[in-house]
Amino acid sequence: MQRIRSWQTGWQLLKSSCEGAAKHVNTSPATSRCYSNLPPQGPGSFGLLFDIDGVLVRGRTLIPEAKQCFRNLVDSNGKYKVPVVFVTNAGNCMRQTKAEFLSNLLEVEVSPDQVMLSHSPLRMFNQFHKMRVLVSGQGPVEEVAHNLGFQDVVTIDMLRDAYPLLDVVDHSRRPKDGIPPTKGLPPIDAVILFGEPIRWETNLALIVDVLLTNGNPDNVWSSTRFPHIPVLACNMDLLWMAEAKNPRFGHGMFLVCLESLYKKVTGYDLKYEALIGKPSVVTYNYAELLISQQAERLGWTTPVKRLYAIGDNPMSDIYGANLYNHYLKASQRTKAQMQAKSGGGGVDPAAGTVDDTPKMTSAELGGGSVVFGAEEDLPEGCSSILVCTGVYSRDQQELPTEPTVTEHRIFHGHRDFRFDPSLTQPSFVVQDVKEAVELVFQQEGWPLE
Amino acid sequence: MQRIRSWQTGWQLLKSSCEGAAKHVNTSPATSRCYSNLPPQGPGSFGLLFDIDGVLVRGRTLIPEAKQCFRNLVDSNGKYKVPVVFVTNAGNCMRQTKAEFLSNLLEVEVSPDQVMLSHSPLRMFNQFHKMRVLVSGQGPVEEVAHNLGFQDVVTIDMLRDAYPLLDVVDHSRRPKDGIPPTKGLPPIDAVILFGEPIRWETNLALIVDVLLTNGNPDNVWSSTRFPHIPVLACNMDLLWMAEAKNPRFGHGMFLVCLESLYKKVTGYDLKYEALIGKPSVVTYNYAELLISQQAERLGWTTPVKRLYAIGDNPMSDIYGANLYNHYLKASQRTKAQMQAKSGGGGVDPAAGTVDDTPKMTSAELGGGSVVFGAEEDLPEGCSSILVCTGVYSRDQQELPTEPTVTEHRIFHGHRDFRFDPSLTQPSFVVQDVKEAVELVFQQEGWPLE
Repeated sequence: MQRIRSWQTGWQLLKSSCEGAAKHVNTSPATSRCYSNLPPQGPGSFGLLFDIDGVLVRGRTLIPEAKQCFRNLVDSNGKYKVPVVFVTNAGNCMRQTKAEFLSNLLEVEVSPDQVMLSHSPLRMFNQFHKMRVLVSGQGPVEEVAHNLGFQDVVTIDMLRDAYPLLDVVDHSRRPKDGIPPTKGLPPIDAVILFGEPIRWETNLALIVDVLLTNGNPDNVWSSTRFPHIPVLACNMDLLWMAEAKNPRFGHGMFLVCLESLYKKVTGYDLKYEALIGKPSVVTYNYAELLISQQAERLGWTTPVKRLYAIGDNPMSDIYGANLYNHYLKASQRTKAQMQAKSGGGGVDPAAGTVDDTPKMTSAELGGGSVVFGAEEDLPEGCSSILVCTGVYSRDQQELPTEPTVTEHRIFHGHRDFRFDPSLTQPSFVVQDVKEAVELVFQQEGWPLE
Repeated sequence: MQRIRSWQTGWQLLKSSCEGAAKHVNTSPATSRCYSNLPPQGPGSFGLLFDIDGVLVRGRTLIPEAKQCFRNLVDSNGKYKVPVVFVTNAGNCMRQTKAEFLSNLLEVEVSPDQVMLSHSPLRMFNQFHKMRVLVSGQGPVEEVAHNLGFQDVVTIDMLRDAYPLLDVVDHSRRPKDGIPPTKGLPPIDAVILFGEPIRWETNLALIVDVLLTNGNPDNVWSSTRFPHIPVLACNMDLLWMAEAKNPRFGHGMFLVCLESLYKKVTGYDLKYEALIGKPSVVTYNYAELLISQQAERLGWTTPVKRLYAIGDNPMSDIYGANLYNHYLKASQRTKAQMQAKSGGGGVDPAAGTVDDTPKMTSAELGGGSVVFGAEEDLPEGCSSILVCTGVYSRDQQELPTEPTVTEHRIFHGHRDFRFDPSLTQPSFVVQDVKEAVELVFQQEGWPLE
């Protein structure tokens, strides 16, 4: 059972486990803390979730251990031995493009069905698909939106074109030679934030305009238009690791700007209808669906019992995997309770155990109103494995890792997530992705080669 | 003659004698409220401070009443009847350019000496002139910085070029074909924020990098580098009026983003060494110096007694004029105290009045360490006149005007300014700039035509 301990103690253990990681990941008790309720079982019982940035690549550069690791993950025909899904918070691209990028770098075939971007669960948000949505991001955002099922898509550039007086921060883009006519658009029903845009000043201004005018920027701003039209955001990552020595800004930083400006102007908190991408539960739930589909294609006849999520970001990958693990445990308790009730017997003692974990917020669940897949086939648990090749590293723990947790002052998670320090504690800490996969196969009692 | 005295000493005395000017403001009738302590006097006793956006123009479009108003302000030779200074928070341009723009629109000659941009007082901040400064803004920022006296100027583009791995939000600007070499730069000593830049993601990321690395982005981020290197910001305006129906984003919105991101990453508040531009006292103090110089050129032999500041933004123009009026009143009391003391007599009862207003913050003073001009020649008061052709309008008072003040919930001023609602109350409210100038001449008992 995964126990929740005081964070300070936990962090001390984490540190000592990381220090030892380079030497004996698999042998030291400190470095290999395993879920006691997830005993090793035979093949066919687990799946792997890989983060990409900071785990497999930094920017466009491959992390060397990743290639060897994936060579071991496929058989002589290039077929994966276990279900593998790449779960990234990137969102300004197509799954196909990301799959090709990974195939080239890792030198194994990666299919688009194995790639999950931050916005992928939006495919299941049918209630928004017929709405007129304003999309924010960069790259092929319009195509991404259509592929996800959105039928009436407005881009920021279309909005600029329809209301040419709005975007005036850049002097060189201001209207010249008189006032251009406002063509206008039918009202916008919802805003979808796919990923970090470029020219933040433009997107920030136009999104605030849309929120303060009930979707029609030709209206007068009004703070009485609250709650505003729905806002759905994908990818809350504040920081991520590219080639630079220090972390780079992610979409989470754009969201911080939008929240701060909206609050400064109106006095109200911006409200999200859904927050999608790691660490939201809805994202792991969807990833699990993809894992199950792969398991079926592999010919596995029993449901996947365990997931292992490998990532570099304690606030995103680790927090998310642990939150999903909480969700799975809670589902099991509920199921046991239901069975006990329907069987007419007494309440199952395990299910009757008082739950000492706080209830999940709507943001943590991702705002999703559905559970994808068959509930009875949900895995038993999800383990989190932290690697030291990205945002988290042993050489540089000051920011954004240690003080985040120990001082309890800096919180790099999203505003709408309660900060539960225990959820940033990984099940395991290893040096890199190769060590992570070796550890998993050892845990499962399955020789990797 | 320009005399400089210690600001700190003066300010200590000022703090002890500051008294609430809001008491002097009559609240009705709404359109013509006058300072009872500023009785009309003869010609040669006043000067005019004009805001530009929302008062004379909206975007590039002249507000019609402005032309007629300025026709009345000059004699048949085109010479101004009274000293006139244009005090704008714009800063992404040169004074010469702004003067030419105004001359063309208003059809009267406007000299660069009459134009004050938000950064103009930086000319007096000698202590920073020899430092290596990173400048943020758009347009000719490097030239602006050199003209103000800064000798060692680094632009954001120079920083991007020296550290090519830093600016990666825009996928199309990321390094391609391998990792480009980091050329580096000598450490940056201070950051000067002139005005709203373009590509906010780039400036936000690189400024945060500089602050977290003690001016050398090749260092590792560290929250122990606090307090960070000095940051000086010009123009805090949150919103301003261009041609669009609703307010547009000003540099104040960029500052909100920078403050929010810095705090999210480090847990610390961003610290400003100076906040320059309306409503800071240092800006009005500098404007008064320009008014005095013009009065001298007009052949006036007595000091200017009153200033009238005409603007459209309660949080900037009106707040600033009223704050400066507080400062002037306090200076007079300090002077009276000093005279009473040096004369060997008892303390002046007026000067000894207990101060019931909150002390001005360093931000409100603008962070300036000097007072420009001769203290004994300071005007007696500064009246604020609000026009309804810009941010404030009688038809649309919901945002960002009335609730700002009455509900005390939305605060459109800068983070570092305490919010004194009485300072957003103008001495007078009129429809437009023409009515404003007519009112002033009527107050002064001087026929305008």
